Amino acid sequence: MADGRWAGAPPHLRVQGCTALVHGLGGDEGPGGIGFAEDVDVEVRGGLITRVGPAAERPDPAGAPPPEVLDGRGLLAVPGLVNCHTHAAMVLFRGAAEDVDVHTWFNERIWPVESNLTERDVELGALLACAEMLLGGTTTFADHYFHMDAVARAVQASGIRADLGWAAFSSDGEAGRERGLDFALRRSGGAGGRITTSLAPHAPYTVTEPDLAAFAALAREHDLPVHLHAAETAEQTRASLERTGATPVQVLERTGLLDVPLLVAHATGVVEADLPLLAAAAELGLVGVATSPRFYLKAAHGTTPIRALRRAGVPVGLATDGAASNGDLDLWASMEVTSLVQKSLGGEGDPRWMTSRQVLHHATAQSAQALHLADPGSTRGAVGRLAPGHRADVALLDLSAPHLLPVHDLAATLVHAARPGDVRHVLVDGRVVVRDRRVLGVDVPAVLAELRPRLAALVRRGAGRVQTYAP
Amino acid sequence: MADGRWAGAPPHLRVQGCTALVHGLGGDEGPGGIGFAEDVDVEVRGGLITRVGPAAERPDPAGAPPPEVLDGRGLLAVPGLVNCHTHAAMVLFRGAAEDVDVHTWFNERIWPVESNLTERDVELGALLACAEMLLGGTTTFADHYFHMDAVARAVQASGIRADLGWAAFSSDGEAGRERGLDFALRRSGGAGGRITTSLAPHAPYTVTEPDLAAFAALAREHDLPVHLHAAETAEQTRASLERTGATPVQVLERTGLLDVPLLVAHATGVVEADLPLLAAAAELGLVGVATSPRFYLKAAHGTTPIRALRRAGVPVGLATDGAASNGDLDLWASMEVTSLVQKSLGGEGDPRWMTSRQVLHHATAQSAQALHLADPGSTRGAVGRLAPGHRADVALLDLSAPHLLPVHDLAATLVHAARPGDVRHVLVDGRVVVRDRRVLGVDVPAVLAELRPRLAALVRRGAGRVQTYAP
Repeated sequence: MADGRWAGAPPHLRVQGCTALVHGLGGDEGPGGIGFAEDVDVEVRGGLITRVGPAAERPDPAGAPPPEVLDGRGLLAVPGLVNCHTHAAMVLFRGAAEDVDVHTWFNERIWPVESNLTERDVELGALLACAEMLLGGTTTFADHYFHMDAVARAVQASGIRADLGWAAFSSDGEAGRERGLDFALRRSGGAGGRITTSLAPHAPYTVTEPDLAAFAALAREHDLPVHLHAAETAEQTRASLERTGATPVQVLERTGLLDVPLLVAHATGVVEADLPLLAAAAELGLVGVATSPRFYLKAAHGTTPIRALRRAGVPVGLATDGAASNGDLDLWASMEVTSLVQKSLGGEGDPRWMTSRQVLHHATAQSAQALHLADPGSTRGAVGRLAPGHRADVALLDLSAPHLLPVHDLAATLVHAARPGDVRHVLVDGRVVVRDRRVLGVDVPAVLAELRPRLAALVRRGAGRVQTYAP
Repeated sequence: MADGRWAGAPPHLRVQGCTALVHGLGGDEGPGGIGFAEDVDVEVRGGLITRVGPAAERPDPAGAPPPEVLDGRGLLAVPGLVNCHTHAAMVLFRGAAEDVDVHTWFNERIWPVESNLTERDVELGALLACAEMLLGGTTTFADHYFHMDAVARAVQASGIRADLGWAAFSSDGEAGRERGLDFALRRSGGAGGRITTSLAPHAPYTVTEPDLAAFAALAREHDLPVHLHAAETAEQTRASLERTGATPVQVLERTGLLDVPLLVAHATGVVEADLPLLAAAAELGLVGVATSPRFYLKAAHGTTPIRALRRAGVPVGLATDGAASNGDLDLWASMEVTSLVQKSLGGEGDPRWMTSRQVLHHATAQSAQALHLADPGSTRGAVGRLAPGHRADVALLDLSAPHLLPVHDLAATLVHAARPGDVRHVLVDGRVVVRDRRVLGVDVPAVLAELRPRLAALVRRGAGRVQTYAP
């Protein structure tokens, strides 16, 4: 399918003379190996990063045509941020479900109004969400929703990268599973390779064990990852134990989902008994967790036990969930709140834990791992690092605003003071998709003009609901 | 003293045709009375708001000279935010004390480097802080620090409003108290009335009870409020009980500080026994609390028990503390984190508590009350509301960015999605101090150029420390 504005080969481009966040310093692939290289070039060819190195040692092959140059002086290049779990089109319901418990949130607010959604609504919402994410330096998102062809079109138009899965409940019957599989096979590699796909059963409390097992079998057969919600709350874990004798993670294990590449959203209800199962799957590179801590606090759900998950070797990526729960799609805020809440709640009340470099490692390298986008040799490609062989997804920040100055520790500045508005340019596959804080692939005023008259109908309740929340 | 750029009478100005956040709808002075009036004018004369009313009913006095007009169409006017407790110049140490417990933070990081501070350093830091605050729509701050004449000059230059107190420890002897009193008397009413002053004993763990009583006596004698830190952590409360047999709040009571206008920063260590004492002082309009929840999480200190304080009738204002603990001076983030953490920790795990309107009430009306700036009849003046008789301190937000749209609940949008960068213009006393996201009274590049060569010396340790933290 044509890729519109983004068709044709990605340019040969050089971000020249910037500071760059790099991984692996001193051979340390963990948070300790994150550092900032000054006065470097980030060179891009065919959508991939080909070199990150000192501007002073720039190779100058005789006779080769010169690349397009983006002046990086005074700018900080970071890997485009990876939002590991969202429902992009839910920006449509931003502010429509406030200050309620999770039962009311699902049953009285969100699931009733989601039954109003048309495919065009989802496309408009996804366009707005892609614009918001790109403007803030998020270049990849994992989406789990309905009408996913509309989301794929928004990804294509906006120039962003995404892993997309069409949500299925057991109440959809086999048709739901087939629709998800058809979508995943049909759209994989779409938008010039920027779309990868996953199977997307909703959650162990809305999908039966035989159906979860059927998804696992499809994933194995078609070499697709699975993206689902599990152990969203401690209450869900208790209810699962009562209902099935197993925790949600044990249900994943006995239905075969821990034997395939899996992305588990939330996991605030993970308990001790789950950890060996997750560790075994992580050992094989199969499981990752996405955490979106703002909503957990808002709903009084505690938070994802990152410290325990890390001890079990599980990569934990950062996420925003949908804007109807999280307020916005701001991964910088997810970074800061992850730091604050892990020090306070998620560790053992330890302010030395979850340093800024740890947070940055979660938001970049671990987010890519959790999303199964960390292997440059895989057909899915690799993101999350400014390193040769990785997709050229880059956010360039302007660090000249007073709220960022002076700098004593750039990692701390990024986690505790930087904001989406500090992002000035954004590249995806080496193409400029945001220039001087303007998103090039989405006509935001036109989207809003079409959306405004639809809003009243969108939030009307009374037309049933997509599901009933009763974990 | 001359007020430079801001000298002369404030203009007659009209913000025309904006939406405005107003208080007191339906006679409700609490959070329930917060609403949004559309297509209104905010009219300003002599530094005061004179009218907030429908543009359609604009009075047009024949013969009167027309006011200066600021086009408010598409903009939301909110009361300039009030930062109830900060140490503005500590932006100098942003990122210099990361990922440590509070003992290390004070004794090994901050108190050693603060002994390097010169008056000029403080002035440069305060200028940068004033720029950051104004750009984010904060128009008033309460500052508690050293070299306060430098801070007063930064307030004067930048056009912001502030309540200033010169910090004193008992180790400073009587000279410290005298310096604080001299400063408070000399600078009160400065910068064209934009400076009010307070006495500023540091905290019950660094100031002896006789000295606290002496401050209370001075406050009564000179009709000055007192601004101090107390019950910053549960550990401090336990230590105070062991050392003195009284909680920090009981110490405030028995030294007479609850009989004078008092602003208590932090109060995360407030216990049940403190509440009747605080309630009695609040009944007389004497006590307010400032909460800056980001650092409490970062240091694993729990949080301010706002629900209990509100039941006791105590106004709770929002704050950032200094940027060396908080990362930045962003009150929008303080608003969001207050919502999240109060729902999760500070109430009783209740997602229905601390609604967006409650948060906005804390950030505006209660912040003004806590700072003793809520009475239009007082010589200190009143801020925190867009209402006749209040100082014309206004932030005008541009709500057209994708991360704010669509809007189903404007209060939720403000608390959970708006950011400092959404502020487009700012007025203080009816004067435009930020226009189109540019701060007019601070030459930020010049400040940075002078600051940069001083930074290495600023963070050098080994020259002693200003105090030892041993609560």
